[in-house]
Amino acid sequence: MKKFINKIDDFLSESLSGFGKAHHEIINVNLNPDYIYRKNKPKTSKVSLISGGGSGHEPLHGGFVGYGMLDAACPGQVFSAPTPDQMQAAAEEVYNQKGILFIVKNYSGDIMNFEMSADMIDFEHSTVIVNDDVAVEDSTFTSGRRGVAGTVIVEKTIGSLAEECASLDECKKFGDHVNKMTASMGVAFTSCTVPTAGKPTFDIEADEMEFGVGIHGEPGRKREKFRNANEITTDLIGAILEDLKPSNNQGVLLFINGFGGTPLMELYLLYNSAKNILDKKNIRIERSLVGNFTTSLDMAGASFTITKLDAEIKRHWDSPVYTAALRSGT
Amino acid sequence: MKKFINKIDDFLSESLSGFGKAHHEIINVNLNPDYIYRKNKPKTSKVSLISGGGSGHEPLHGGFVGYGMLDAACPGQVFSAPTPDQMQAAAEEVYNQKGILFIVKNYSGDIMNFEMSADMIDFEHSTVIVNDDVAVEDSTFTSGRRGVAGTVIVEKTIGSLAEECASLDECKKFGDHVNKMTASMGVAFTSCTVPTAGKPTFDIEADEMEFGVGIHGEPGRKREKFRNANEITTDLIGAILEDLKPSNNQGVLLFINGFGGTPLMELYLLYNSAKNILDKKNIRIERSLVGNFTTSLDMAGASFTITKLDAEIKRHWDSPVYTAALRSGT
Repeated sequence: MKKFINKIDDFLSESLSGFGKAHHEIINVNLNPDYIYRKNKPKTSKVSLISGGGSGHEPLHGGFVGYGMLDAACPGQVFSAPTPDQMQAAAEEVYNQKGILFIVKNYSGDIMNFEMSADMIDFEHSTVIVNDDVAVEDSTFTSGRRGVAGTVIVEKTIGSLAEECASLDECKKFGDHVNKMTASMGVAFTSCTVPTAGKPTFDIEADEMEFGVGIHGEPGRKREKFRNANEITTDLIGAILEDLKPSNNQGVLLFINGFGGTPLMELYLLYNSAKNILDKKNIRIERSLVGNFTTSLDMAGASFTITKLDAEIKRHWDSPVYTAALRSGT
Repeated sequence: MKKFINKIDDFLSESLSGFGKAHHEIINVNLNPDYIYRKNKPKTSKVSLISGGGSGHEPLHGGFVGYGMLDAACPGQVFSAPTPDQMQAAAEEVYNQKGILFIVKNYSGDIMNFEMSADMIDFEHSTVIVNDDVAVEDSTFTSGRRGVAGTVIVEKTIGSLAEECASLDECKKFGDHVNKMTASMGVAFTSCTVPTAGKPTFDIEADEMEFGVGIHGEPGRKREKFRNANEITTDLIGAILEDLKPSNNQGVLLFINGFGGTPLMELYLLYNSAKNILDKKNIRIERSLVGNFTTSLDMAGASFTITKLDAEIKRHWDSPVYTAALRSGT
């Protein structure tokens, strides 16, 4: 295993330290317990958004802490849920009079630990669970559908609503709504390698792909022979649309997400394939995002996420954001 | 070779088409000849900045076309220089009364083709050559030092100066200055795979690294045994500082660049290592950039870039920018 590492035990803390120093104008990093939080606490009271999950999916979630998005993120060890004391400490740090909203990807460990932290805090709180992955019901670490790249859309849009000083109940309802309007599915060409394991999570042949892979390398719908980009895109988009059932002329956000090991050139080629397919189905791409936003360490592969847009989601997608990994601007 | 591709011959054009559609609010893409240019031509006359080079380094250069940075970018085939007709057509598209400034990474093919295009245009023009890679003098495709990730700093800062309606001569001089203040060096753990070749550009053992690698996989200073992140960082930063000879208490921009296959977690860990080393040498990091900005397709590895800052460079680094890949914002 060749990775930029000193000691495996220090991998996360050294990486978080670097993140904190590189972006000190936007965020602070607390170590022990580990959490990343906004440098400038909002002046007016607002719902505080806290997300988190296993590390290894960067820039998710720490890269999305900042104005217009998250108030704090709690990174667990690589592909391991954060512990309840992290979320408790983060909540105490960022609480701002209007309650805490946890945004949690649907994995059993994450759900359990966020629930435990919720029991430990005295503030009014609620939770939005993201489960956008249409690949499989129930998986290695999950009951029900997995939460994957659609989390970025959920965090961005609730972040915007919270910035407008909406109530905890409004933020929770809107988050559930955006999650329901969002569906994702991905494919892997190679496995990622978790540092503590020191070897690839799964074996895969040179002519195979894992269709519907999870962001921790969990099995998808099937192991398939490698095919060309248009064919892969047709099947992934097909599975997503079967779930979303968009109406004719539906406006959508199309998000092509790289898993970490796939060049941008290929992600843009996938965008082109997806656009051609959506055009033919009379589905209008109104907003786009392309890049490595919900990664699986060094895994080669990509996922597609589609969100059905309405006026509110569009407005909150378009609103200003200033984080390490996502910025608006004109 | 598993890549998201339909036909190898269409790889670049399909990727460019996707890029154009995904970012249609910022840029237009012209195919045949291929060039990317700003959607909104500046209202006041300004020097037009045109860069380009082989594809496979995305987001360089197309991702940096937009307000505050480039006016146009000319992508060649993967790792191949763009042809003169591309730069000629781009120059005719974006010429804006104050002349054309070409920004060219120092590779023999690029230099030759940009020179040929300069001969073909009637506009006043000049060229800034970027040669920030301190690893080797002369290389597979280069006489003198190679141009690598420092190009991002050069393009950002000249872009800002040009936006202030500086003259062609001022932009050229400032670009040369920033290039001189900038030095880079990288290391690769794995090779990239060029689609037309269908196999890795070079072989490398599981316990080896290419120290001083070029962004096309060219040989560096030496093939070494793999070492830990602090040791690698010490040597790369050492080589860069030997070239830059910063004064005591020098303020710098530190840029950690991923080659495409290395997770963000590792890049931030490298930032942490570099910060510790620079602190001890009494060199102050005043600005930072971390991410995949000058890639080598799917190569695992990273490069360090340091720019010695003065008031002018700092001001032009901080000024607003709005491109697909780099955005300021507050």
